[in-house]
Amino acid sequence: MKVERDLHMSRGDGEDSYASNSRLQEKSILKTRPVLHKAVAAAHALSLSSGGPGGGAMVVADLGCSSGPNTLLVVSEVLAAVAMVAGGSAQPQHVQFFLNDLPGNDFNLVFRSLDLLKNKKLAAKDRREESLLPPYYVAGLPGSFYTRLFPDHCVHLFHSSYCLMWRSKVPDELAGGAVLNEGHMYIWETTPQAVVALYRRQFQEDMSLFLRLRHRELVPGGHMVLAFLGRKKSKDVLRGEVSYTWGLLAQALQSLVKQGRVKKDKLDSFNLPFYAPSMDEVRDVITRSQAFDITHIQLFESNWDPHDDDDVEMKMEEDVAAVQSGVNVARSIRAVIGPLIARHFGEHILDDLFELHAKNVAVHLQKVKTKYPVIVVSLQAK
Amino acid sequence: MKVERDLHMSRGDGEDSYASNSRLQEKSILKTRPVLHKAVAAAHALSLSSGGPGGGAMVVADLGCSSGPNTLLVVSEVLAAVAMVAGGSAQPQHVQFFLNDLPGNDFNLVFRSLDLLKNKKLAAKDRREESLLPPYYVAGLPGSFYTRLFPDHCVHLFHSSYCLMWRSKVPDELAGGAVLNEGHMYIWETTPQAVVALYRRQFQEDMSLFLRLRHRELVPGGHMVLAFLGRKKSKDVLRGEVSYTWGLLAQALQSLVKQGRVKKDKLDSFNLPFYAPSMDEVRDVITRSQAFDITHIQLFESNWDPHDDDDVEMKMEEDVAAVQSGVNVARSIRAVIGPLIARHFGEHILDDLFELHAKNVAVHLQKVKTKYPVIVVSLQAK
Repeated sequence: MKVERDLHMSRGDGEDSYASNSRLQEKSILKTRPVLHKAVAAAHALSLSSGGPGGGAMVVADLGCSSGPNTLLVVSEVLAAVAMVAGGSAQPQHVQFFLNDLPGNDFNLVFRSLDLLKNKKLAAKDRREESLLPPYYVAGLPGSFYTRLFPDHCVHLFHSSYCLMWRSKVPDELAGGAVLNEGHMYIWETTPQAVVALYRRQFQEDMSLFLRLRHRELVPGGHMVLAFLGRKKSKDVLRGEVSYTWGLLAQALQSLVKQGRVKKDKLDSFNLPFYAPSMDEVRDVITRSQAFDITHIQLFESNWDPHDDDDVEMKMEEDVAAVQSGVNVARSIRAVIGPLIARHFGEHILDDLFELHAKNVAVHLQKVKTKYPVIVVSLQAK
Repeated sequence: MKVERDLHMSRGDGEDSYASNSRLQEKSILKTRPVLHKAVAAAHALSLSSGGPGGGAMVVADLGCSSGPNTLLVVSEVLAAVAMVAGGSAQPQHVQFFLNDLPGNDFNLVFRSLDLLKNKKLAAKDRREESLLPPYYVAGLPGSFYTRLFPDHCVHLFHSSYCLMWRSKVPDELAGGAVLNEGHMYIWETTPQAVVALYRRQFQEDMSLFLRLRHRELVPGGHMVLAFLGRKKSKDVLRGEVSYTWGLLAQALQSLVKQGRVKKDKLDSFNLPFYAPSMDEVRDVITRSQAFDITHIQLFESNWDPHDDDDVEMKMEEDVAAVQSGVNVARSIRAVIGPLIARHFGEHILDDLFELHAKNVAVHLQKVKTKYPVIVVSLQAK
């Protein structure tokens, strides 16, 4: 597996696409809004004070922008926040926006949808805040955020949503061919502690690299708002909520192995470039970087089923609801992991795999209403 | 016709794609190399002297980058030129590259091919100049260059090749529905002077807008290298070499009208957003802008047949050669204008149309070896 080539959301805007199945990620962006708005205000003030000869625009980058409505949502959230802090300034600060993702992302779809933003702006012209959107310019920036993406000290604000749980690679020892985590693609109850340690080390290496790179690219005092899947309890590494997600998908793959439709060694050699850290693990790597101050850190929870907006903790009693939620969860997972699965196992297994997965999820949700823990952290460069 | 939506080179990298049929444009880039290298050296010096708080990278934008090998060729030419002027500097200037084109361009193809540049760099590591390529970052920037693309005063060098003969729109009076240029899509022998004036005015408006916009975006003293199709003789507006290009294509469409395969009013209502100016017209609009000094201006000629590297003026005596050249010319034209034709007349006529066109071109080339006049101008912002 080559993460830079193979990891991308399902392209286009069809039924199975990420663009059509990204409500989970949308909810996270909306939940993060207050933190983002504060960071935008601070970055805006910074850009005004650190302007170069030409006055200098405010430079914002969304890392792992993907394609679809959420991409535009982030841009319009930031622009609306700038408009709010700029008030009715006669000469508003220009905003230069970079949308970053791996080169496999559907940038064509993003670029063709930018007009929607313009039209939205025009349509809302009578609403005062909206009509004051600052002049903005949107560029696409292909590349891994585990490499340098910008020249030194030119970005005022980085934003990243639902991406930093992805690792730069599968840990070398797991990718090497030895079967270390039989029948699974991520940490699970039966996973040996040595394998857990490999995943955790990969997270620590990736995250400290990420912080080092962004610190070089940020204007001194620049800001970052990062939201990503995490783990609720530090100790619960073998049965965290995210482990269940991949565990149930592995279970579906095991069924296909039993049916002879997938070879066992194919499953055994499939490992996700993924790690969901706890708040403590995140705090620890940030502190050790010595590059950032933590302005804000929190963990919120989001229902597995993107269409379930209910905060009730109760488990699902009704079969019908659980079945529908199973389908919803499977769709949202497929939009994210489908291309990676197709690359390793072949496109032909996708429909059956996610049908099985939906059933597994439905059974699970009848036992316990599971939620994704999302860690949000707002940082300022030292 | 909506130029921003409909004008784009043939996508992908298949047989009829622009990526596979852009040798003409490649030859122009290579021919312009000495002028480009000089401008890169000047822009590099400027970026070093105008660096902001972070030192400031050199910002370069290619306007109308399209997709395919030429896109990368421009990037690698600029980087090689920077490497040459930077010598063996221990801390080379970082280069931030923006590839601009209309949103319909195949940016996905461009982004996925950027790795080729990296591999090329690695493969050439033992060659001293190549191994010194400066650190660079490539972004895609969708949008018309007849609109603002950048914040104020942040670009050091603009480059544009084979694009500025395209207008922002078909002149309103021609697009309005009245048949003013029967049977043709561009200026031709029978075109009324009033229609010529419409095209010329559109050029003047577009070009002065372009200069005004870029002047705002350039760092003071910044540079531009522009190459585009022009007209050899100022007076020869009705039968310039480019008029023949579109005249022969219109002739092929007229044949399809006669065969009843294309409706006459479809042809009459098709007008190109295009104008090939003379050197005098270009000089005039630049002088009137009062925003730029002309560092260099020249006109060179390029054979119609992209695969004909012969400079001989002689006409083609051999049928076989002329037939092959007709096919070559038709392919290079189709790669550029195919999508626009398909949008107006329907995809289904493309194969037959360009087969007829190839024959028309072959007949024409047996009478006279025709060349494209290309105007190259290097400008510095006042």
